[in-house]
Amino acid sequence: MKELLNQVLKEIKPSEEERELVESIKREVEGISKEIIAVFDYDVEPYFVGSLAKDTYLSGDHDIDLFLAFPLEVPLSELREKGLELAKAIGEKLGKYEIAYAEHPYVRAFYRGFKVDLVPCYSVRNWRDVRTAVDRSILHTEWVLKHLNGRNDEVRLLKKFFKGINVYGSEIYVKGFSGYLTELLIIKYGSFLDVLENHEFMLRQKIIDLEGWLKKEPEVAMKTVKREADADVPLIIIDPVDPRRNVASALSWEKFGIFYFKAKQFLEKPSREFFFPRQKQKRDYKKLLRKKETKLVTLLFEKPDLIDDLLLPQLEKSAKGFMKALELRGFKVFEAHWGYKNKAFIMLEVDRTEKPRIGIKPGPEFFTERGLRFYSKNQKVWIRGKRLYSEKVVEESIVDAIRELLEKNQVSLGKQIKEHITQADILINFVPPELSDEAYLFLSREKWNLKG
Amino acid sequence: MKELLNQVLKEIKPSEEERELVESIKREVEGISKEIIAVFDYDVEPYFVGSLAKDTYLSGDHDIDLFLAFPLEVPLSELREKGLELAKAIGEKLGKYEIAYAEHPYVRAFYRGFKVDLVPCYSVRNWRDVRTAVDRSILHTEWVLKHLNGRNDEVRLLKKFFKGINVYGSEIYVKGFSGYLTELLIIKYGSFLDVLENHEFMLRQKIIDLEGWLKKEPEVAMKTVKREADADVPLIIIDPVDPRRNVASALSWEKFGIFYFKAKQFLEKPSREFFFPRQKQKRDYKKLLRKKETKLVTLLFEKPDLIDDLLLPQLEKSAKGFMKALELRGFKVFEAHWGYKNKAFIMLEVDRTEKPRIGIKPGPEFFTERGLRFYSKNQKVWIRGKRLYSEKVVEESIVDAIRELLEKNQVSLGKQIKEHITQADILINFVPPELSDEAYLFLSREKWNLKG
Repeated sequence: MKELLNQVLKEIKPSEEERELVESIKREVEGISKEIIAVFDYDVEPYFVGSLAKDTYLSGDHDIDLFLAFPLEVPLSELREKGLELAKAIGEKLGKYEIAYAEHPYVRAFYRGFKVDLVPCYSVRNWRDVRTAVDRSILHTEWVLKHLNGRNDEVRLLKKFFKGINVYGSEIYVKGFSGYLTELLIIKYGSFLDVLENHEFMLRQKIIDLEGWLKKEPEVAMKTVKREADADVPLIIIDPVDPRRNVASALSWEKFGIFYFKAKQFLEKPSREFFFPRQKQKRDYKKLLRKKETKLVTLLFEKPDLIDDLLLPQLEKSAKGFMKALELRGFKVFEAHWGYKNKAFIMLEVDRTEKPRIGIKPGPEFFTERGLRFYSKNQKVWIRGKRLYSEKVVEESIVDAIRELLEKNQVSLGKQIKEHITQADILINFVPPELSDEAYLFLSREKWNLKG
Repeated sequence: MKELLNQVLKEIKPSEEERELVESIKREVEGISKEIIAVFDYDVEPYFVGSLAKDTYLSGDHDIDLFLAFPLEVPLSELREKGLELAKAIGEKLGKYEIAYAEHPYVRAFYRGFKVDLVPCYSVRNWRDVRTAVDRSILHTEWVLKHLNGRNDEVRLLKKFFKGINVYGSEIYVKGFSGYLTELLIIKYGSFLDVLENHEFMLRQKIIDLEGWLKKEPEVAMKTVKREADADVPLIIIDPVDPRRNVASALSWEKFGIFYFKAKQFLEKPSREFFFPRQKQKRDYKKLLRKKETKLVTLLFEKPDLIDDLLLPQLEKSAKGFMKALELRGFKVFEAHWGYKNKAFIMLEVDRTEKPRIGIKPGPEFFTERGLRFYSKNQKVWIRGKRLYSEKVVEESIVDAIRELLEKNQVSLGKQIKEHITQADILINFVPPELSDEAYLFLSREKWNLKG
């Protein structure tokens, strides 16, 4: 085990040369920033945050986060305006840059092959000062630096493990473990192996309170615990720098569950594949379809020009909308899958693509006005109990059903991708070559299989 | 119209010769009965009842009902014993006979080509004396003879119309109009055409009280009305000879509904086909199946040795049991049909006979004991929310599904035909030649089509 972990560490830990390069770049970026700040004559302090600042980054994985901290006296609107202006000026000096949007706009610059995010924020000293979502980052960095006690490599192992089993990242479309959460778990349990060994215990214990907020600020902290417990999250890790926040609030049961089983598997049979997963074997999805005797329906449409944070949740919503609507129409939908390559797609595995042409149509009671109309309108009419019945022609193919659902607006779709989906091609038991691996991984469930 | 009805009447009214034959047979039967009664020295009076006694029978349709009325003082057990003894003796004298069973046993004899039912009963003078279900028959006959006032031919027309549209008979497996009910409708509305014209009105009026029981015996009659209204029957016709009884209590909404629409159709476009229906055209059921893209499943089994009154309701119950059970198993059952020719059958029209091989199997929450067992037991496992999921193989064919339902006793079947059904052959999209017309009439719905 020890040998295995050392071997992995050798591959993921930045070398001395890499480390020196990173430091020199950081110094240069800091120099340029200070220079520009002086030109603007703003009362702003630049701070490095994130994994580079905490020295928990993986080799080759070094995006720079430079936060521009304004005094608390500056009003928010002014911070937004001045902050962006300042960041743009620094970006310009660094070279290429673009404007990106989160809670407020920031600048993403590129400098000597490094991505540099320049983010305006408030200079807060504690949680009571926090005014925007990014303000805590400086506090996080300070807290981790103070408590990590040289266990940086343990963080690297855990981070790489999370990445390997595909549960790393707190983005809304990942709902996994964030970098900060990874660091806190190491600080809590001591080492990579300790975290894995506590996979069951942490779920039962549920609450992690590293800073003792439940004693120091019982009212605030209990409110957080109660809120998160009500939301039924797998873990409640009270933020050491802010008792109002659960660091693991974005962690889904699914991602925690994958970690849960992968930890078990790793402890039972350690292997480097958990860190460096082999590409899952892809086979012929068409053969698989024939074997399973199910059908694959794929909606293929122009990828909307949206960031993943927006696009993927809307694809998920739309896929689930189709599942529900098609079930109501008499098609059994076993599973759904979504994503994009060149184009965006929603795949549905269904029991059949054709339904029988006829259906029984129940009518009103025979002795009513409506009964007489039903009687006149239909060619074949009979009585069961008091009601009239007839046969109606129902839609035959799932393609027609989907078209009709879209036309009649009877399926719940993501707002910003609705238009694109309406224009989708609908493919039956066939996908373009670029999606054939996706189709195989989906239909075989290898995409999600815990034992895969 | 008048000409049409005269024409029909000519065909259905017994000729003078037929009438004379019937009368002479009746006299002979009466003579023989009185002779035997005298030999036994019982205090029994023979009464002719039914359509022959009331002169409302159709040509060629003359079963003789001779009731043997015992004094009220005779205890029921003695009436049963002595009555059967007496009826058997008369039957022997008449020639061939057999014993039949209703509320109590009676004798069915055959004399010069006529069927003669010899039924022991009590000699009752009014409803308060009624002790067995057949005791009212003598009162019915007397009441009709007193009130019919020569409208016998109108009864014949209505009876033939009911037979033609297949709603005649009060047997449990018909649930239509009885002979007595037919006579009462003519007495109430005056003529065949008047009854038809009142098809809507009689449903709205609901209650027919020819003998004024609601005034003479308000408490008893209201109890009857309330009971029948609660049972939600289409018509309440208080028996002129017994305020406790609804003459139409066995009439189903379905049979009334057929009458309702056929009356409309006849008044709009009178034709002799209502009285003498042409055989419905039968076509190729296999072609129809291909066109409808549905499937026909037929259970074929030995006809149990039961009278229709018992067999048909149990077939209905079993067919409905299969509909329900198969729906729960994921097969859509559009309609069911049952009956017998040489063998008994249950036909089911379904959407498909094969289901996809796989199904999604939801498991327990992943962090539980049961979750771990589910995880170990299954080859492919993934998480949705907190729960584990896997795929399972599900039964493929409806034949297997039916066999399993029967084996596991998971389908509600008629008690006395259960054994037979368990031994049934299951035929898919094919029936033996003797059932091909049945299959066509079922699948085309011509069997029930009000416009057929």
